[in-house]
Amino acid sequence: MTADGLGFAEAELSHDAFLGGRITLYQPKSGYRAGIDPILLAASVPARRGERVLDLGCGAGPALLALGARVPGLSLTGLERQAAYADLAVRNAAATGIAARIFAADLREMPAELRAESFDHIIANPPYFQAADRTAARDAGREAGRGEEAPLADWVRAGSKRLAPAGRLTMIVRAERLPELLDAMQGLLGSLEVQPLAPRSGRAARLVLVRGRKGGRAEFRLHAPIVLHEGSRHVRDGEDYAPRIRAVLREAAALHFGASDQ
Amino acid sequence: MTADGLGFAEAELSHDAFLGGRITLYQPKSGYRAGIDPILLAASVPARRGERVLDLGCGAGPALLALGARVPGLSLTGLERQAAYADLAVRNAAATGIAARIFAADLREMPAELRAESFDHIIANPPYFQAADRTAARDAGREAGRGEEAPLADWVRAGSKRLAPAGRLTMIVRAERLPELLDAMQGLLGSLEVQPLAPRSGRAARLVLVRGRKGGRAEFRLHAPIVLHEGSRHVRDGEDYAPRIRAVLREAAALHFGASDQ
Repeated sequence: MTADGLGFAEAELSHDAFLGGRITLYQPKSGYRAGIDPILLAASVPARRGERVLDLGCGAGPALLALGARVPGLSLTGLERQAAYADLAVRNAAATGIAARIFAADLREMPAELRAESFDHIIANPPYFQAADRTAARDAGREAGRGEEAPLADWVRAGSKRLAPAGRLTMIVRAERLPELLDAMQGLLGSLEVQPLAPRSGRAARLVLVRGRKGGRAEFRLHAPIVLHEGSRHVRDGEDYAPRIRAVLREAAALHFGASDQ
Repeated sequence: MTADGLGFAEAELSHDAFLGGRITLYQPKSGYRAGIDPILLAASVPARRGERVLDLGCGAGPALLALGARVPGLSLTGLERQAAYADLAVRNAAATGIAARIFAADLREMPAELRAESFDHIIANPPYFQAADRTAARDAGREAGRGEEAPLADWVRAGSKRLAPAGRLTMIVRAERLPELLDAMQGLLGSLEVQPLAPRSGRAARLVLVRGRKGGRAEFRLHAPIVLHEGSRHVRDGEDYAPRIRAVLREAAALHFGASDQ
């Protein structure tokens, strides 16, 4: 980030392809960089043409733009606390030719324009460091780059307020945050579903996709894990993603909750 | 149950073998009858000789006696609200030759003797009907037989109070109650772990084993599911349990959390 904190210099940016080149994103070379998490999140959202989508903490836009690339005709909105990342999201949307509104604001203090709206889908890939873990962050710059400090309950509260009736909030978090996230969703959302993402077959989940529905009344569901990598351990150089995940990452395929459920 | 509600008549009881005949239990022919749940629960408890075990809502004793049959030298205690089932538990313990103390009391009003003690392991297989589901119960007698009406939070609170430092509470519940159970455990117990039990490979979990540790500080873990039945659907007459589960049910084998984790 530049010294004045207002934006990134060109030399600080990389330009990276996602979804087999369907989108390319400017991202800071150091700081928060999109991995596969926002792409998996976007792939899991059952949005249809014409629906309104809000990405809470959209960063440089990977999830929002990946969703827009997969499902045409969505109304896309992103909210990002850090102005430098919000600027990148604006630039990335323009460069990919996907229309998206980006607001630079904290999710706990949304602009009035956003507070007057509601959405069919809200998505979020909150930063990974819990307040209690902050000492574990390796360098302060990287941590500041990930920077949102709101607890998951704030994300869920902000999201559920902006959901239309029967609208869905979908989030991706590290598996160890599942109790905190479910706790935050209970009472505000119904029809909760957890889709574990296991690194390999038979392994404990490292990531979970979690979804709740405004006014939903279905029972909680814990789906069978979706396995990210083939084989029982890493043996090949390069990628060993399972075919379903490779299709998500390279061909902009959808990833349905319960895809492993027969 | 007899008209005076004090006990079961002999003609109302069946005598059923568990663990390949290692234990046989008198149970009411109608009312709450042990399925595989208490046996799976008992198999999952990492108790060692000399440790103290409390079964909250022990019913006729299946989990407590299955654990006692698998691990010799435990100090076994059961608490059961319904006197008729507590009486059966006493009788079943005596008939199987496994020493166990049984208290007939509500878990929210434990006798002073119990309140003065602490335990290395507490186990519970709470009844399945949530208050909100009660209209779904098919007949009142059966429902009364399952009868505990305490919400899961009461079970967890009662259990965590009686745990020794670093003691573990292990429960088995239907998967749809997982958010309620995790919510109840958070703050009272740490090192939470969920072991999903899937009916078949690739299916959503129908049951979950959940464990928390008094004073535990490890991160939450969502283990890979343990699959109960072989094949993708029921094709054979009779049992089609997976070998690991057959060993639990017929040979009193242990069932470790994360057994599927490589």
